[in-house]
Amino acid sequence: MRFDEAYSGKVFIASQPTHEDAKGVLYGMPMDWTVSFRPGSRFGPARVREVSLGLEEYSPYLDGDIADAKLFDAGDIPLPFGNAQKSLDMIEEYVDSLLTAGKFPLGMGGEHLVTWPVVKAFDKHYDDFVVLHFDAHTDLRDEYEGEPLSHSTPLKKIANLIGPENCYSFGIRSGMKEEFEWAKTSGYNLFKYEIVEPLKAVLPKLAGKKVYVTIDIDVLDPSAAPGTGTQEIGGVTTKELLEVVHMISRADVDVIGADLVEVCPAYDQSDMTAIAAAKVLREMMIGFIK
Amino acid sequence: MRFDEAYSGKVFIASQPTHEDAKGVLYGMPMDWTVSFRPGSRFGPARVREVSLGLEEYSPYLDGDIADAKLFDAGDIPLPFGNAQKSLDMIEEYVDSLLTAGKFPLGMGGEHLVTWPVVKAFDKHYDDFVVLHFDAHTDLRDEYEGEPLSHSTPLKKIANLIGPENCYSFGIRSGMKEEFEWAKTSGYNLFKYEIVEPLKAVLPKLAGKKVYVTIDIDVLDPSAAPGTGTQEIGGVTTKELLEVVHMISRADVDVIGADLVEVCPAYDQSDMTAIAAAKVLREMMIGFIK
Amino acid sequence: MRFDEAYSGKVFIASQPTHEDAKGVLYGMPMDWTVSFRPGSRFGPARVREVSLGLEEYSPYLDGDIADAKLFDAGDIPLPFGNAQKSLDMIEEYVDSLLTAGKFPLGMGGEHLVTWPVVKAFDKHYDDFVVLHFDAHTDLRDEYEGEPLSHSTPLKKIANLIGPENCYSFGIRSGMKEEFEWAKTSGYNLFKYEIVEPLKAVLPKLAGKKVYVTIDIDVLDPSAAPGTGTQEIGGVTTKELLEVVHMISRADVDVIGADLVEVCPAYDQSDMTAIAAAKVLREMMIGFIK
Amino acid sequence: MRFDEAYSGKVFIASQPTHEDAKGVLYGMPMDWTVSFRPGSRFGPARVREVSLGLEEYSPYLDGDIADAKLFDAGDIPLPFGNAQKSLDMIEEYVDSLLTAGKFPLGMGGEHLVTWPVVKAFDKHYDDFVVLHFDAHTDLRDEYEGEPLSHSTPLKKIANLIGPENCYSFGIRSGMKEEFEWAKTSGYNLFKYEIVEPLKAVLPKLAGKKVYVTIDIDVLDPSAAPGTGTQEIGGVTTKELLEVVHMISRADVDVIGADLVEVCPAYDQSDMTAIAAAKVLREMMIGFIK
Amino acid sequence: MRFDEAYSGKVFIASQPTHEDAKGVLYGMPMDWTVSFRPGSRFGPARVREVSLGLEEYSPYLDGDIADAKLFDAGDIPLPFGNAQKSLDMIEEYVDSLLTAGKFPLGMGGEHLVTWPVVKAFDKHYDDFVVLHFDAHTDLRDEYEGEPLSHSTPLKKIANLIGPENCYSFGIRSGMKEEFEWAKTSGYNLFKYEIVEPLKAVLPKLAGKKVYVTIDIDVLDPSAAPGTGTQEIGGVTTKELLEVVHMISRADVDVIGADLVEVCPAYDQSDMTAIAAAKVLREMMIGFIK
Amino acid sequence: MRFDEAYSGKVFIASQPTHEDAKGVLYGMPMDWTVSFRPGSRFGPARVREVSLGLEEYSPYLDGDIADAKLFDAGDIPLPFGNAQKSLDMIEEYVDSLLTAGKFPLGMGGEHLVTWPVVKAFDKHYDDFVVLHFDAHTDLRDEYEGEPLSHSTPLKKIANLIGPENCYSFGIRSGMKEEFEWAKTSGYNLFKYEIVEPLKAVLPKLAGKKVYVTIDIDVLDPSAAPGTGTQEIGGVTTKELLEVVHMISRADVDVIGADLVEVCPAYDQSDMTAIAAAKVLREMMIGFIK
Repeated sequence: MRFDEAYSGKVFIASQPTHEDAKGVLYGMPMDWTVSFRPGSRFGPARVREVSLGLEEYSPYLDGDIADAKLFDAGDIPLPFGNAQKSLDMIEEYVDSLLTAGKFPLGMGGEHLVTWPVVKAFDKHYDDFVVLHFDAHTDLRDEYEGEPLSHSTPLKKIANLIGPENCYSFGIRSGMKEEFEWAKTSGYNLFKYEIVEPLKAVLPKLAGKKVYVTIDIDVLDPSAAPGTGTQEIGGVTTKELLEVVHMISRADVDVIGADLVEVCPAYDQSDMTAIAAAKVLREMMIGFIK
Repeated sequence: MRFDEAYSGKVFIASQPTHEDAKGVLYGMPMDWTVSFRPGSRFGPARVREVSLGLEEYSPYLDGDIADAKLFDAGDIPLPFGNAQKSLDMIEEYVDSLLTAGKFPLGMGGEHLVTWPVVKAFDKHYDDFVVLHFDAHTDLRDEYEGEPLSHSTPLKKIANLIGPENCYSFGIRSGMKEEFEWAKTSGYNLFKYEIVEPLKAVLPKLAGKKVYVTIDIDVLDPSAAPGTGTQEIGGVTTKELLEVVHMISRADVDVIGADLVEVCPAYDQSDMTAIAAAKVLREMMIGFIK
Repeated sequence: MRFDEAYSGKVFIASQPTHEDAKGVLYGMPMDWTVSFRPGSRFGPARVREVSLGLEEYSPYLDGDIADAKLFDAGDIPLPFGNAQKSLDMIEEYVDSLLTAGKFPLGMGGEHLVTWPVVKAFDKHYDDFVVLHFDAHTDLRDEYEGEPLSHSTPLKKIANLIGPENCYSFGIRSGMKEEFEWAKTSGYNLFKYEIVEPLKAVLPKLAGKKVYVTIDIDVLDPSAAPGTGTQEIGGVTTKELLEVVHMISRADVDVIGADLVEVCPAYDQSDMTAIAAAKVLREMMIGFIK
Repeated sequence: MRFDEAYSGKVFIASQPTHEDAKGVLYGMPMDWTVSFRPGSRFGPARVREVSLGLEEYSPYLDGDIADAKLFDAGDIPLPFGNAQKSLDMIEEYVDSLLTAGKFPLGMGGEHLVTWPVVKAFDKHYDDFVVLHFDAHTDLRDEYEGEPLSHSTPLKKIANLIGPENCYSFGIRSGMKEEFEWAKTSGYNLFKYEIVEPLKAVLPKLAGKKVYVTIDIDVLDPSAAPGTGTQEIGGVTTKELLEVVHMISRADVDVIGADLVEVCPAYDQSDMTAIAAAKVLREMMIGFIK
Repeated sequence: MRFDEAYSGKVFIASQPTHEDAKGVLYGMPMDWTVSFRPGSRFGPARVREVSLGLEEYSPYLDGDIADAKLFDAGDIPLPFGNAQKSLDMIEEYVDSLLTAGKFPLGMGGEHLVTWPVVKAFDKHYDDFVVLHFDAHTDLRDEYEGEPLSHSTPLKKIANLIGPENCYSFGIRSGMKEEFEWAKTSGYNLFKYEIVEPLKAVLPKLAGKKVYVTIDIDVLDPSAAPGTGTQEIGGVTTKELLEVVHMISRADVDVIGADLVEVCPAYDQSDMTAIAAAKVLREMMIGFIK
Repeated sequence: MRFDEAYSGKVFIASQPTHEDAKGVLYGMPMDWTVSFRPGSRFGPARVREVSLGLEEYSPYLDGDIADAKLFDAGDIPLPFGNAQKSLDMIEEYVDSLLTAGKFPLGMGGEHLVTWPVVKAFDKHYDDFVVLHFDAHTDLRDEYEGEPLSHSTPLKKIANLIGPENCYSFGIRSGMKEEFEWAKTSGYNLFKYEIVEPLKAVLPKLAGKKVYVTIDIDVLDPSAAPGTGTQEIGGVTTKELLEVVHMISRADVDVIGADLVEVCPAYDQSDMTAIAAAKVLREMMIGFIK
């Protein structure tokens, strides 16, 4: 006999009792070993689950309920501390298994490098898809101080795999000059500062496409998401981020997977960031998993 | 001999020395026993008084001064811990006595359930008035897990007392599907997400009316009010909340009473939420008490 | 497929996979509705589980391992917010079921009133047992401001049930004059300020007895346990509290159940209190469950 | 009509309604303008009052009650920001008026420099008295970087006024070499590191004497009092500080006044320091005011 | 041999190794002794340097790099605690020396009074310049409770020196009635609440002018800058403040010096305010120093 | 021209201006990439420098001054994020260079793994020395989840290099059963729980020996050092840790180098841990560098 796990914040509210029943699977990737500034996002997934207790299960925005997504919270992948390569391998293997089982993978970071093995797994299962990336940072480096496995590199790796023309970054406001220039010359779709207007322009062009969505919580202004490793002022509001999730939900695209990363609870005494992440994830569950 | 109480944060700045001199009376309702997520709003009124010390007494928005409101800070009603029914009875009785004495009651919560006995007291003194409600949450449940005395229910109780057509809720972005549907079918006036534009549309229709104003601080975005029990992202800015108070102050309505609730200091290391509440209360004092 | 729940802090480390395998059962009682000062202990059990991740499973003090206790973490009992009587009934019923199933109940509060229904359940199953109580506060009131269901009353209720001569309180340093006087005249065993020396004197007298152990984390000095509702300076160290658990573990007594209460995470940015509670619970598991 | 001010933390619990009824008067000196490291003790008195709400009025240590002290909380003296000289003048004048009225002055800082004008006022009313000083710091400088009005100087000024042989400092663990050497050669009584044993030795020699007691909260170890401007590790426990207050209370001396200073709430998220100060003040009220 | 100081947050990132190489000089003015509400901005400059480590050196907004500004971080001027007049003298003398050496002075407060001696130094070197002032507060008092050296007075002193018609204040939302009225009648240019639109209107009129820019971080909404002495809700976003810096950078004006003041780290557990300040300073370096 | 760096917390107080003048060199090792629980000790050295500003330069315990140690603060070694092997190599190389130059190396962590390359460097320069290790944790694993470069392993590596009989661990209260057993059988000197008494017994046996001292701040009780990755209750007081440093300083041993590690500022809002570390380092400077 075990009490309802959602009650004590053990799993995301409204989680299905078993993996078998699920359409979507929520999983944590508690890794932060390549972070250059403030570490701690390894504790992000657990805190997001804990504060999900304060949410309603119903979304007035989408007039839907988490229950409709038949989501199963699988917990955190037990990644080995400090070993980046092995962590990435485990993530790729797990997401591969979810796709084989026909589940919708919804990931929680951890640092943004985790999105790289996730997309690699998708690339094995899908011939053609685009990545929609919401972030304050370009993440387009080839390496960080000589290290190719760095949280500054995932979008570059992804662009190299699926083609820069299939990558769309929104809200970008920080990076090296070289990264912005590479985006310009390579055909990579990079939209600075804003997320709503650029997405509005892009979505019609993606009609009928399969899309993977990755959200770095630092795309939000630090006022709305202080609990993250590298705050960048001049960011977007939670209203705008919610609108983006709703626009994608209603667009003529086929969302095949998604993640939300870089929640770092130690820098947020009020849990504002984890609460924001939990609600954005609720909207992603209701809007993306069909 | 006692020093100026405002100096050490004992009473709201510019409080009158005695109840007799006052046009308006500020009183605290330090109750949070029916809160479902994060408790602690019982400490809200005391912290709001403490930080009021940092405010100017003059409002450039309204070109007025707290002194004009002749406000007396009566302190907190000594509510019995954990006993909801008795607490509500004490609040009702006290507000009744204020109205009998011809004072303008300006309440500070505590949880939102406190507004229910306040409105009951007004209902004894006024035949006809409307309630303007600013909140992230519907608060329209009949009960919460079997309990009719819950912080999720006050507006439903009020609607049942004065009629749903006399209730106007603004900024609502969280609730159960059933609550939104009941609002739609009952004639209750519910405006989602925004507060300024809907109020602009509503105010002309209320010309000449008596209005009671109740503000849940969580109508603000968590970025502006992290210190509250149940944060809901996608909220309004303090600029918008100030504008709403100013619009009501200048409208052709007769404000007969007001409250501001749900400040919970433990989740806000910077006191941002209490400072916001103190300034909004200052504007309510200057704009509403005539 | 679900990952190891201990990894993401969902259950206490080293929890057994099922209730059936367990000798001991850890359960949470997330209730704080009768607290007079700072509420929030409803979040205690979840935070204790989360930080248990940082502990070793082996105790060098007792040269034993959590695995030996075959502990199952059952989660939190889903108590109804604000309804004290119903919450107490649910706790009593659950502990009754554990005792019927032959499990060792190890509870986590929540406020101290939860110990009352726990002891009521034990009283149905055991003819004769004593209660060892470690606390800063007497908790010997009959009521608090007219309310008999209060966190200031559990030991009085227990004394009335099993006889004051079967109650032993240690570390007491706060209470009303009347409570201290009642203890003196009634035969209740109350030891002020200290825990190690008085227990050393008492334990031999309890040889062969059945004992229930209840620890209020505020018996610790606030320097070691700031995250609790009502701090009382002049408390004991964690070394002393560990020693007490070890003394009982090695004594000629039969521990039949235990609890640890009043961890309130919101007032402890460093999680020091939850970490202390987790380690004391580990020692209780290894030392008490045989 | 005003509610019980103690309820909302406006005045220290159990304060008398008027100055006239009082034997003792509690007053705040919210000054921190000469502090060299971390400022903010100006907010100490208000926070101490607020958390006094969590205390019992009865002391099991002294078997007495605050009510016996007939204490009146006069609030904070409205000191002018940044103007040290004028602030000191106001303090001296106020304490002078209290002594003239036959009241026992119990002060709360603010920085330690405030004790200087207090002792000057006592010096006008009493021919012969000693000062018992509990602190981590010598406070025996003549000036700090050229400034004679500094929080590093009060005990030197006092020694110059009443004679170094009438000053007793306990718990001292930080200062300049010159300060320690001056103490040695001047006849000043300085006891390093410890407070209980040295006081035990000193008290019999003071039989029949009038004594003023000044406690800097930083005499406590930072683990027990993090919320202070200049923490110094290696300090005493709250048990030891309570014992010191109790020893003085029971000694054959006539306590004529006292203060407790340097509580700085901004550096203590748990309010541990203010709660410690409130309880030590309770014991001083019960033990010192006769 | 000393390691790169920027690495451990000792100096602002990308600081030149020596004063000689520099076009611009960054210097701290760690003074907060005349602050009326929450002190602590003396620690602002050190924290801003520390968090600058998390910034990129490249600005996508201005397509420029800190390296272009050839900035030297000179550290903090060693101001004497509590001595306002001497502190102001030291600041004036230092800025005077920078101007004589042909460097661009970029100051960090500390409280806003520090801008007064800075402008006095500029007044010796320049016949004709205007001051652009971004702030929540008027800072136009003649004195504060009798004290002419107060953080509420700097703009009044500046207006008296260079003429009110050469002062432009933006974003103002708090002050005494008398201050607003003096601005109106004296020819002082005061723009309430907003910063972008008023500046857009003003900049063309300043074509060819020399301008000094002073930014009080509290011009930002408290949601974006909680770590400041006196928060005022209804403020501007970081997007708007960045836009203002960019507008001035691109305008036909000659920026001759600038400062950013009132960062108070103790009230901001997430370092959001210091991070905002660091990034705004980066944009000022890149945009203003030519 | 640069201002005194100690003033703004850029270097440890009383640092010599150049490496050449120094007898001792303070250096930071900002690495935390192999930490299993709470990361963030990479920010430890910078925060320790910052708070050193609040210390006196004189020690009444040792009657000495930092100036006597002629200490130069070299800053932090620029370690590559996430690359453990390269970080360790850089540390070893740097310490090697210090020893070659005849300086006393005084290191600041960072995680405890940094002590491994430091001791390797000493092993090249000294034939025979012992390591005195103060810690809550054994740190005697061969690997952590398959990873040999882990913060759980440094003392095992050191024991393998210099012989277990030359290693002395004090205060140990957490580890795996296997670690305690290996210590017992291998001749490793491991003292559980306490530090003062065991050291008192050990020191005479080390007469005339060269010793390296490594202090993990978590040897302190969490009440005195909450800001560390893995708190373990039942720890020692700061009085005891100071006494240990003083005992070594006065003993007939030749201290050849030392470090203090695992300060993690994000979990300590009051900076208590960094302040403790700074003062212990001051005593180490004065007592160890001769």
